[in-house]
Amino acid sequence: MEKLQVDNALLKQFKLWVQDDNLENLQSQLTQMYPQDIAAVIDRLNTQEARVVMNALDKEAVVKVLVETEQDVREQFLSAYISYEIANEFIENMNSDDAAYILNHFPNYKKEEIISNLQDIEYASSLLELISYENETAGSLMALELVKAYQDWTVAKCIEEIRVQAENVESILVVYVVDNLERLLGIITLKNLILADPNAHIHDLYNKEVISVSSSSPVDEVANLTKKYDLMVLPVVDPLGRLVGRITIDDVVDLIKEEADEDYQLMSGITEDVDPTDKVWILSRARLPWLVIGLFGGIASSRFLEIYENQIMIHPEMAFFIPMIAAMGGNVGVQSSAIVVQGIANDTLGTKNIGQKILKELRVALLNGIICSVLILAYNLAFNDSYVLALTVSIALLTVIIFASVFGTFIPMLLNRMKIDPAIATGPFITTSNDLLGIVIYFTIGRLLYANL
Amino acid sequence: MEKLQVDNALLKQFKLWVQDDNLENLQSQLTQMYPQDIAAVIDRLNTQEARVVMNALDKEAVVKVLVETEQDVREQFLSAYISYEIANEFIENMNSDDAAYILNHFPNYKKEEIISNLQDIEYASSLLELISYENETAGSLMALELVKAYQDWTVAKCIEEIRVQAENVESILVVYVVDNLERLLGIITLKNLILADPNAHIHDLYNKEVISVSSSSPVDEVANLTKKYDLMVLPVVDPLGRLVGRITIDDVVDLIKEEADEDYQLMSGITEDVDPTDKVWILSRARLPWLVIGLFGGIASSRFLEIYENQIMIHPEMAFFIPMIAAMGGNVGVQSSAIVVQGIANDTLGTKNIGQKILKELRVALLNGIICSVLILAYNLAFNDSYVLALTVSIALLTVIIFASVFGTFIPMLLNRMKIDPAIATGPFITTSNDLLGIVIYFTIGRLLYANL
Repeated sequence: MEKLQVDNALLKQFKLWVQDDNLENLQSQLTQMYPQDIAAVIDRLNTQEARVVMNALDKEAVVKVLVETEQDVREQFLSAYISYEIANEFIENMNSDDAAYILNHFPNYKKEEIISNLQDIEYASSLLELISYENETAGSLMALELVKAYQDWTVAKCIEEIRVQAENVESILVVYVVDNLERLLGIITLKNLILADPNAHIHDLYNKEVISVSSSSPVDEVANLTKKYDLMVLPVVDPLGRLVGRITIDDVVDLIKEEADEDYQLMSGITEDVDPTDKVWILSRARLPWLVIGLFGGIASSRFLEIYENQIMIHPEMAFFIPMIAAMGGNVGVQSSAIVVQGIANDTLGTKNIGQKILKELRVALLNGIICSVLILAYNLAFNDSYVLALTVSIALLTVIIFASVFGTFIPMLLNRMKIDPAIATGPFITTSNDLLGIVIYFTIGRLLYANL
Repeated sequence: MEKLQVDNALLKQFKLWVQDDNLENLQSQLTQMYPQDIAAVIDRLNTQEARVVMNALDKEAVVKVLVETEQDVREQFLSAYISYEIANEFIENMNSDDAAYILNHFPNYKKEEIISNLQDIEYASSLLELISYENETAGSLMALELVKAYQDWTVAKCIEEIRVQAENVESILVVYVVDNLERLLGIITLKNLILADPNAHIHDLYNKEVISVSSSSPVDEVANLTKKYDLMVLPVVDPLGRLVGRITIDDVVDLIKEEADEDYQLMSGITEDVDPTDKVWILSRARLPWLVIGLFGGIASSRFLEIYENQIMIHPEMAFFIPMIAAMGGNVGVQSSAIVVQGIANDTLGTKNIGQKILKELRVALLNGIICSVLILAYNLAFNDSYVLALTVSIALLTVIIFASVFGTFIPMLLNRMKIDPAIATGPFITTSNDLLGIVIYFTIGRLLYANL
């Protein structure tokens, strides 16, 4: 098996094999590929071609590939099967967390229909429990497959138990130690099991220092604990402290990536998690809310500028710098808010209070503001006739940068105190409000200076 | 031990104990805390207080905490020690990857001085090798501690070897199988070792399907492989295929988080990786480049508007909508480019060529553009006297949204083709160029309509 670059050449090759019905070449290529790479190929084939490739896979591989394909591709593929087939050909052969993940994309009635068709009643009942956890909780992310040992067992008995459970649990990592009521007591690593005397008792060996998470905890907490304490696997307990599952770090990696992507999109004014391959109206719907906010901001700016209609008529040169003032206010606001939002998310803000934080932002803003104002003053004095305009632009720019910076710092901190996700404060919201703020400051200073100089 | 919320109350308690020289309470609290939480406390104490707390820790704990503290806090703490002490009290007791990480923050001469002071010559030579890897490569991220087995060993011999090496390797995860020339052949999991017949030979048991990375590979590749193939640990090989180290997923998690943070900051117009706790001039320097780009954009806009000075004098109402047109262009451009940049980073763009991609963006833009234009047309017809202005604003808005969208899609794709990080195209760059584009379109359409209607 080798890592493959899934490129156009490989895709063309696959399409050709499918066209020629060349099952032999297809299968010989597929056996050399990792499920993730096969899924990447299938994601880029049309439904008909994808089906041919999927059917060329053996039973075990098809499940692994299915988990890795994109959601719409998977739905397309599964739509050709009845619930009985989905249950016993696919779900049956998956890890519980993958099975729950895929089941959760079906409507409720279909989910239950598929589960009720499973031959393995015990597995079916576990899955029913798994899909009952609310979205975005630790329970919805966990797998049921784990190896546990009772504290009064010997090491030999524990190894025997691993032998029994080995088939179900792909990667064991650690053995969980529980009491008779299934409450989590601690962990014992495979290393320690290997190194221990087979007759030693688990309760003399296990490590009580285990970090666990409640099944109802939000996934954010799962991500934060895993990151902070460098965990490979995190046990999940119910409200009574009983061990119910475990979350492995590879799933947490996906989670962290998804959250980062969402924050990135939120800052760029996109409200839903969208892919470039999504449908036009979904892409459109995700962007429209922020554009409409921008429209309202623009209308507010226009209403404000109306007040200065006469001034613009007499000094049309004032209009020349409207774009600069608005843009710089927006830029500075986004910079400040991004730092604060990130600081809140990563808990690196420190314990300084809001006042101290704003004071520091003020100093940064003052420094940058002075540099920018001096630069633009030099430009205007050299290339523009009106020294009043030059002064107006520079003073306004400095003021706007300071205000935007304070505003950009204060708003996300305020939202955070009000338990609202501060990430919504970055991007279009800050840009729009600072545009308006900039215009107000610019024309107020302009009127003052033009009247008095 | 328990997870702790490191809050102001806990900090106050620590400061009090330090003040009262209450070593007993201090130590009893510290033994109940995880190194990560102790580090979080120390990061928020002053240098003097931090030193008292560090000195209250036992030898083993002090190293673990030191690795987790913030860089400036660590530097402050270590600055009180001579190279000999740093080597043998701290570096000596660390995992090689942590040791290399900390050493790399010292200047070159100091690095080598510390290493040459190590008593353990073998470890010193390993560290010399580790710090020689270039920054941002797999080699710079790996740890040397691992368990390897030769293919002709028996399982019993392998377990014996684990026993010998157990002290050095904190978490084993897998055993690497190598040939006589130390070339990586495959892996064997601890589970399989436990389950195997002790007399079986490794070469009959090991899994040849191992994904590895070259020590000179960029860290991006490490992150991508780990994410894609759900790896817990990734072996690192030299150009001859010899096993030289391994990278565990917890370090990759930190890496992914850092990269996401950098992208986030880049989009918000911040060029360096900064924390809210950094010094004022560092925060300032990180933001200034994009602000200066914004200045140039503003100057370009002003030069362009100068051409229309007479039109602004006659129709000052045209200036009212400059902020809206500029802002909407910027917003749409950032939305489009963010989706493309993220698609490139996550490899979810699909195989569609640039033309098809832009066509799709065009359709999204057309839909959003029409909705926004109709909204603003309705507003202007209702609240503004000039129907020419109303028409100008709406036609310009639609045109700007379409252009900004195409521009925002095309530029990052072009940069990517030119092997330039497309992430720099989002944020201020797109905003600034779309501001200018918006103004040009708005006034061109305005002149046309005012002259002919």
